[in-house]
Amino acid sequence: MTRIIDVGLIQMNSRSSAEDNLTRAIIRIENLAKRGAKIVCVPELFLSPYFCQKKDKRFFALAESLPGKTTRILSKIAKREKIVIVASIFEKSSDKRFFNTAVVFDANGKLCGHYRKMHIPDDPKHYYAEAYYFEDGNLGVRSFQTRYGTIAVLVCWDQWFPEMARIAASQGAQILFYPTSIGWPKGDSKKIRLAEYEAWKLIQKSHAVANNIFVVAVNRVGLEENINFWGTSFVSDPYGRIIVKAPSNREANLIARCDLNIISEMRKDWPFLVASRVKLSL
Amino acid sequence: MTRIIDVGLIQMNSRSSAEDNLTRAIIRIENLAKRGAKIVCVPELFLSPYFCQKKDKRFFALAESLPGKTTRILSKIAKREKIVIVASIFEKSSDKRFFNTAVVFDANGKLCGHYRKMHIPDDPKHYYAEAYYFEDGNLGVRSFQTRYGTIAVLVCWDQWFPEMARIAASQGAQILFYPTSIGWPKGDSKKIRLAEYEAWKLIQKSHAVANNIFVVAVNRVGLEENINFWGTSFVSDPYGRIIVKAPSNREANLIARCDLNIISEMRKDWPFLVASRVKLSL
Repeated sequence: MTRIIDVGLIQMNSRSSAEDNLTRAIIRIENLAKRGAKIVCVPELFLSPYFCQKKDKRFFALAESLPGKTTRILSKIAKREKIVIVASIFEKSSDKRFFNTAVVFDANGKLCGHYRKMHIPDDPKHYYAEAYYFEDGNLGVRSFQTRYGTIAVLVCWDQWFPEMARIAASQGAQILFYPTSIGWPKGDSKKIRLAEYEAWKLIQKSHAVANNIFVVAVNRVGLEENINFWGTSFVSDPYGRIIVKAPSNREANLIARCDLNIISEMRKDWPFLVASRVKLSL
Repeated sequence: MTRIIDVGLIQMNSRSSAEDNLTRAIIRIENLAKRGAKIVCVPELFLSPYFCQKKDKRFFALAESLPGKTTRILSKIAKREKIVIVASIFEKSSDKRFFNTAVVFDANGKLCGHYRKMHIPDDPKHYYAEAYYFEDGNLGVRSFQTRYGTIAVLVCWDQWFPEMARIAASQGAQILFYPTSIGWPKGDSKKIRLAEYEAWKLIQKSHAVANNIFVVAVNRVGLEENINFWGTSFVSDPYGRIIVKAPSNREANLIARCDLNIISEMRKDWPFLVASRVKLSL
């Protein structure tokens, strides 16, 4: 297996039509595949605007089953383009419960599995009323062996919790994906905006360092009602060095060349995973 | 209790005479106290050169009991200057075991307690042969209520493990100290030197963000045989913003004004400690 993998990031905005959003995402996936990307990721809940800004029971109609319409299409694209796809959907489970879910398709189109977001922000004041829509994930942290490496997916607010990244890396994840919808809520001061934006990059880079892995943050972009999503999707190598970074104000397709050899090289000197004395459990 | 605390950092080199090193540290402590510092910290194992570069049984003679000669003197200084002192010693326990230990004296001279370094680097190739000298700490993570706030101390290599900082913050620590001896070992490439130096700042700032606390890194400085200790002692606020930073190539006394109100303010929006779903145990 080659140890150098091109990872594709789709930084996009999401409009009112799910069909249109899916079509635009697929065009971007195809574009990145053509350019050599082997694993591609879209932002959190990319099929719709970020509806969690308000509490409205009509939005539950956006949820879909797994497998469902969207995932069947993504599976076909993954198979046709021979790439791994990491996507994010609003899931309605067979027992009618609702989750903020990430799905991973292998390069043969097979569903590797799914992860349900465990840290759900409950902050309606800042327009993140996710607890109204989603239960806490009940599957734990999961890593997936794909044709192009072992990967894990955590979702948006999970990115602030180093323990989650640690568990993913302990399961063998070499690349950790964070489909994300983060931005500046209306009303925050300029100073707080800058502080939060910088802290967001910092904390994710730190997971790369603490676990000697690659971290891929894929964010939505653009103003939607009360939140200005700040884009800035990026990839950090295991030393916390940013390999690629998107702008904060427009859509972008990015490719990051990830040399997985850095992981084992770095672990020779800094074997953080085996050296850690703290046990983690969910 | 005032919520704005001036913290003093002593970035120093350590020469062959323990007496001389202690005297020089005390002069710096007094200087910082005069300038208003309320909590002062020295680098890891400040009483001696970094002897762990080689394995030599004669160095065990450097170890001292707790309480012992050095700590009795530091206790007096803390009382006289009415400041909290965080220090680091090579401890020989009453049952003749050896630890890399941090001690905390309250502003009345009373020993608040001690912490024994839990993550011991075992890397003789890069001149960190600590496992030859120190057992793994057996006291767990500890936080201490002092006159000027609740603080915790972890030691050097502990700084790479986010779980340790999390435990300290969960115990109420508002300021987390890392007495440190880190530098560039002979033979590393320029590229790796820069990567490790940047990763070191990054990981510690990330603990501040993940836990909404202040982080204080106090490093030794200067060339000692095979390691060039890189100084750069700094304080990060809870957003990962560096308040003060020392140079990489010379001794320095620093004062950082820490506004502890930021902790509770930030936790209103980002309540990471209460929101975390992962349980930690030692």
